[in-house]
Amino acid sequence: MSEKTYSLEMTIRTLLENKRYSSIKDILITLNAADIAAIFAELEPDILPLLFRLLPKELAADTFVEMDPDQQQLLITRFSDTELKEVIDELYIDDAVDLVEEMPANVVKRILYQADPETRKLINELLKYPEDSAGSIMTTEFVELGMGYTVEDAIKTIRRTGLDKETINDCFVTGPGRKLEGIISIRSLILAQDDEKVSDIMDTNVVSVNTMDDQETVAQKFKKYDLTAMPVVDKEDRLVGIVTVDDAIDVMEEEATEDIEKMAAITPSDKPYLKTSAWEIYIHRIPWLMLLMVSATFTGLIISSFEEALAAQLVLTAYIPMLMDTGGNSGSQASVTIIRGLSLNEIQFKDIFTVIWKEVRVAVLCGISLAAISFLKLMFLDKVGMLVSLSVSLTLTVTVTIAKFIGCTLPMLAKKLGFDPAVMASPFITTVVDALSLLTFFSIAKAIIGL
Amino acid sequence: MSEKTYSLEMTIRTLLENKRYSSIKDILITLNAADIAAIFAELEPDILPLLFRLLPKELAADTFVEMDPDQQQLLITRFSDTELKEVIDELYIDDAVDLVEEMPANVVKRILYQADPETRKLINELLKYPEDSAGSIMTTEFVELGMGYTVEDAIKTIRRTGLDKETINDCFVTGPGRKLEGIISIRSLILAQDDEKVSDIMDTNVVSVNTMDDQETVAQKFKKYDLTAMPVVDKEDRLVGIVTVDDAIDVMEEEATEDIEKMAAITPSDKPYLKTSAWEIYIHRIPWLMLLMVSATFTGLIISSFEEALAAQLVLTAYIPMLMDTGGNSGSQASVTIIRGLSLNEIQFKDIFTVIWKEVRVAVLCGISLAAISFLKLMFLDKVGMLVSLSVSLTLTVTVTIAKFIGCTLPMLAKKLGFDPAVMASPFITTVVDALSLLTFFSIAKAIIGL
Repeated sequence: MSEKTYSLEMTIRTLLENKRYSSIKDILITLNAADIAAIFAELEPDILPLLFRLLPKELAADTFVEMDPDQQQLLITRFSDTELKEVIDELYIDDAVDLVEEMPANVVKRILYQADPETRKLINELLKYPEDSAGSIMTTEFVELGMGYTVEDAIKTIRRTGLDKETINDCFVTGPGRKLEGIISIRSLILAQDDEKVSDIMDTNVVSVNTMDDQETVAQKFKKYDLTAMPVVDKEDRLVGIVTVDDAIDVMEEEATEDIEKMAAITPSDKPYLKTSAWEIYIHRIPWLMLLMVSATFTGLIISSFEEALAAQLVLTAYIPMLMDTGGNSGSQASVTIIRGLSLNEIQFKDIFTVIWKEVRVAVLCGISLAAISFLKLMFLDKVGMLVSLSVSLTLTVTVTIAKFIGCTLPMLAKKLGFDPAVMASPFITTVVDALSLLTFFSIAKAIIGL
Repeated sequence: MSEKTYSLEMTIRTLLENKRYSSIKDILITLNAADIAAIFAELEPDILPLLFRLLPKELAADTFVEMDPDQQQLLITRFSDTELKEVIDELYIDDAVDLVEEMPANVVKRILYQADPETRKLINELLKYPEDSAGSIMTTEFVELGMGYTVEDAIKTIRRTGLDKETINDCFVTGPGRKLEGIISIRSLILAQDDEKVSDIMDTNVVSVNTMDDQETVAQKFKKYDLTAMPVVDKEDRLVGIVTVDDAIDVMEEEATEDIEKMAAITPSDKPYLKTSAWEIYIHRIPWLMLLMVSATFTGLIISSFEEALAAQLVLTAYIPMLMDTGGNSGSQASVTIIRGLSLNEIQFKDIFTVIWKEVRVAVLCGISLAAISFLKLMFLDKVGMLVSLSVSLTLTVTVTIAKFIGCTLPMLAKKLGFDPAVMASPFITTVVDALSLLTFFSIAKAIIGL
């Protein structure tokens, strides 16, 4: 598919050189907006306005939405006022809001100036919701039906206004004061008799979110209830917007990426990697590296305090990396599993003892297997003698158990205390486990070898 | 929400004790299937069949789909043949296939025996598709329209057959031999005139997948093209099924979880954590721990071979954990970012030089910052002298650069060579970087301190 896009790009380049614009148009109109945007992204910015003008109005707007902010900005600066107005008129309101959020102030000014007063008012209202709230990702273009409507009325309403709505697959029934009373799918409407009352056949058991709810809540409810659209209500339970499933999918993706970034000790960013400057990447990574480096100092202190013992048995030093790594890996396996389970709502705080009991059993199994293998290796391959072999293997068992215990409890406690569990992932746990495993190692070695 | 479920559970328990079954029914029918399943999961298995029988047919089937395999199995064994038949008749075909895949052989036999012949045939056909293929997650219950249909015909067809379809929001237009010719949304049908021809207003630019395509491809196309349903065609381009957006969302979630597990050196499992036995978890984790432990041996070998140098300057040992950890963390930051970018299709192999150049600049920035801080700390806090301080700081800069370079290139090369980039994440890179950072450390220390 990427190859298909590539060969189309080449064709368009050739046609451009020969100024065969009508052929280019014929090609473009057979494509999806997402594919056109992918091709545009590869072409020289200079020719974009020309190509963009070849697109029919609706496809142009759809393509515009799929483009990168840089390219959108470039197009807007090249647009005449009329062209800009045409694109904005075609945009769904949530896409217009996204655009306004991405553009610099002077461009925003021009956009708002060209938008019709109604749209401008809506954009301004939606901009007021906090970032990542349900209100900030909702659209106000939905089908609203009255409680007194018959099915026939409803279908007439959809026919009259449906063209401008983001979806007609779910319609929302409101009572006095726009209070949300029920939801009805287009399927139920089509399968019903014309004279049935909408309020009789609607689903009154509505799953909704509040404008101020976090977008993560929206995504979780979409998954749990297999929805295609979710109503958003304000504090007074008035229906103010809906979130459609495509936007919920974007949120799910964003949230998964954020979790993954946090687990790798990176401050999340919502820009794609290739669009982020080296400096921004640096800013997102350095605080964590610094923090973790400083905390690793404690591990160093432990080594220093056992310096004499080490000097007597320098061979022990060779096993420090292996013990540290294995402890770290065991801990991250547990923590990452639990963090993901918490994110997916598969694990709750009340399960903490089940989780610990499970991890302890896994730890004992892992610890014994690893200890057995490394004992054999130390005895017969490294030939370091019984006492050192025993110290290393015993340390492994203890370290793996500690690591898995900490790995599963820290994220759950973090969640309980209202912190983000993802931050408790591998790097953080590795640092704690490192220190503990060295402490264990030296204590065991001291006891067994009697340094 | 979880609290709401909890208080409902308590109410139901009380009502059960007082045998107030009709009140329980009144409560249950106001709930969503997902919520009922969540409550059932908390109750004693013995009373489930009784409660389940209180549910109306359709809600019963929906709830059944949301339940855990254990509970499903329990219910099936308690069902009479008629009850089982009723539930199976209500299931969508893809849910029936999921059920058959989860149940033990004797239960499957009973399910297939109670299913009507048509359903049985479909289930058997769908079971033949490889796991995680588009064919294995599709449903065969979709609205199919002929090329010659008018809008009126189409709406009549939907009214006649729509009740049994998984979605009517998108309808699929086929020509001779069931070849997929176009797609038309219910919205276009409703907004069109009755006598318009479906083939004139349908969208012929259809995004589809092949039955044998990986489910990840399905999920990626859903995201890219903002679809709500995707047609699945066989090798001869015949339409054989569709994937609906709720199933695509499950796939996205599954794929993200798999990536996260692989990044933490765990063999992915598709069972929720709490349903997985300690033994299974052990089996998914131990091979990686073992492999990584054995590879950490090389790091040990490096230390051994510099044993004499170390003995002369034992203070160096105290900085080994810090250097290893910082290298590992720098590497995972890069690798995890790139792996996620590859998964989301934001980064392609052709971007490799852009990526390397960006990472190198980030590495230099990070390396210098970390080196500066640790130089000051070693000089003025640890007071280990100029030469040791210089060796450690220099090693930091080099290590961070190596780590970021390896962290970004390995996943991209893995992808290019057809391996899974996620396996190249933190633990694997940590092991490589550990060895390299120690080698750097000792070489630099040798040169500077002249051990």
